[in-house]
Amino acid sequence: MPAEPPADYGFLADALDAADADAFVHVGSDADADLRYLTRVSTSSTSSSDYGFVYADGATTLCVSEDARVGAFTGEVRRDSAGDPLGTRVVAVLDGSTVPDGATVLVPRHLPHDTAVYLERAGYAVTSTPAVREQRAMKSEWELDRLRAVQRAAVRGMERARSILREADVRDDVLHWQDAPLSTERLRRQVNATLAAEGVVDVTHTRVRCGPDVSDSSDTPIELRVGVPLVVSLAPRGPHGYYGTLTRTVVVDSDGGWERRAHVGVESARRVALGELEPGESLRWIHSETVAEASSFGLTATPGDRVHGVGLTRREAPSLADDAVVGTVVALEPSATEEEKGTIALSDLAVVTEEGCELLADCSTSLTP
Amino acid sequence: MPAEPPADYGFLADALDAADADAFVHVGSDADADLRYLTRVSTSSTSSSDYGFVYADGATTLCVSEDARVGAFTGEVRRDSAGDPLGTRVVAVLDGSTVPDGATVLVPRHLPHDTAVYLERAGYAVTSTPAVREQRAMKSEWELDRLRAVQRAAVRGMERARSILREADVRDDVLHWQDAPLSTERLRRQVNATLAAEGVVDVTHTRVRCGPDVSDSSDTPIELRVGVPLVVSLAPRGPHGYYGTLTRTVVVDSDGGWERRAHVGVESARRVALGELEPGESLRWIHSETVAEASSFGLTATPGDRVHGVGLTRREAPSLADDAVVGTVVALEPSATEEEKGTIALSDLAVVTEEGCELLADCSTSLTP
Repeated sequence: MPAEPPADYGFLADALDAADADAFVHVGSDADADLRYLTRVSTSSTSSSDYGFVYADGATTLCVSEDARVGAFTGEVRRDSAGDPLGTRVVAVLDGSTVPDGATVLVPRHLPHDTAVYLERAGYAVTSTPAVREQRAMKSEWELDRLRAVQRAAVRGMERARSILREADVRDDVLHWQDAPLSTERLRRQVNATLAAEGVVDVTHTRVRCGPDVSDSSDTPIELRVGVPLVVSLAPRGPHGYYGTLTRTVVVDSDGGWERRAHVGVESARRVALGELEPGESLRWIHSETVAEASSFGLTATPGDRVHGVGLTRREAPSLADDAVVGTVVALEPSATEEEKGTIALSDLAVVTEEGCELLADCSTSLTP
Repeated sequence: MPAEPPADYGFLADALDAADADAFVHVGSDADADLRYLTRVSTSSTSSSDYGFVYADGATTLCVSEDARVGAFTGEVRRDSAGDPLGTRVVAVLDGSTVPDGATVLVPRHLPHDTAVYLERAGYAVTSTPAVREQRAMKSEWELDRLRAVQRAAVRGMERARSILREADVRDDVLHWQDAPLSTERLRRQVNATLAAEGVVDVTHTRVRCGPDVSDSSDTPIELRVGVPLVVSLAPRGPHGYYGTLTRTVVVDSDGGWERRAHVGVESARRVALGELEPGESLRWIHSETVAEASSFGLTATPGDRVHGVGLTRREAPSLADDAVVGTVVALEPSATEEEKGTIALSDLAVVTEEGCELLADCSTSLTP
């Protein structure tokens, strides 16, 4: 695996210029996507410690605990005063810089409240900026490689689900695997084991659902049956923090009813979305064209905005309000639901290219396992 | 799995009384431990959405997105105005309550900055409280069951590591497994697959390290060799968000040198820690007794505070500054390091009981796989 390249802070310099501000500050843990993006810290080995990041005088400083790992961070690392609140530590960094008293300091809107209080008490004017969130939409080649890797792992997980369903035998319409009934939970754990073996570190968001009410918020295990659409949704997170997004719907021993027709419609909607995604196209337009295509098959689209960015979080910029830009990674998630029948859903990740878009990894859409 | 019981908000009422405050507010995602503890929300199926929590007039309200899952939350759920910032939405809840204008509102210190600004602009006085963090130290029976479950999964993961090391054959001092060299990364992925199959959803913090420099912050895969101490550290997170903590050190084909003597010393330090942990005992005292025991074997304790609480985060209250209290869950992590030799580390989770303490799960400490 190639080493993580250092972050490029040019966008912060631009944000400071535009806002007539002199510094940027953020405080958060390695679970905070903005903090992780800014610092490229690896996951801390010992504790869920917080980090204080300062960009001032064109240089970066990171205040960390005594044993925190700093990964690919290339700026100055300060381990002194590790017992003090990070708010006082980032103030000390600013006070030691050329940033003037009373200067404006840009922060993400979710900067911890106590850090903002420390900054304000020290005389700085705190102003929120969306700069980091916006910059995160544009993926570097290194980030695209990480996203492709985790998406390939998702494909392996999906193939594992398909192979278990192919191996399953049917007793009284219930699927059995390795001599025991196959439930949504049992299949989920097997898929997660494959994802983990492929290097994925977080499988919190693996969902295996079936039956008419797949939107049911409970995760109560359900026995899998023939003829019922089974929706497998994967959003694995790789070791560098990037998420995959892959959903497929399969039916064991389909009797060729609603689910076959619906699946043809959702596949067609998926093709429309992939065909429309290109630089300059409005994401809202792509979304509405996808819904329209499903409607032309007599299908009702599942509610929700199903075109959005993915990266260090499962849902991030760009949103429906944005136009597609080269280098952004977009989830396309056509889905149709009919009461009493079930849901047919497909989702994929694509990167916007000069020519249109490209799937980050390819995976069969077949309704048959 | 028994349903998650509703949260008990008596501690918030006490905190408001003590601070002469009228309401408590928090905003965060389901990845925020305080927010998760307060609301008992499950992981959202569709997005990493934020939640706004309000405790006022003795009742709880949760502002959520249109499709957010609310898990075991029992108070009022508001899905209206879902497009507005959560800061304005929690202000609207307060404005609709009997909380007077200008009242003091308690918040965790890491409340998002923008939420604090909305509260202050609406005339409320925002004050930080450690109430949630402190309350989280006291585990309920339901929480203890979740912690035991994830710790049992950790034991299975450790057994998987041991069984692979037992199966491994040695070629030129390098361990081979299934006809290929066994690296730290390969072993890590196999252990993670077992953890996932046991229902664990987050294996980010699985570490497999060997050689003299196990504190090395890099995760570069290293080929495993005979006679070198291998430290396997597991901190798996279960589906309800609780972490396990389990570390074992093994040596394949030990020649009986430093590592055997050090392992005896660290095992003895572990027994001291388990013997000392009881209600009323200072955690700092337990820590220093553990270090002293290792010293009596001529060992140098690995730096760091190695007695601390574990729950919805890997490191939380109680800390070294606290005394042990019945119902708190404490990680005990004796460890010794010698340059050029390596590290011998053991860690376990114990709950403090009336009689002393009890391991959450039992696992062999043997140095031989």
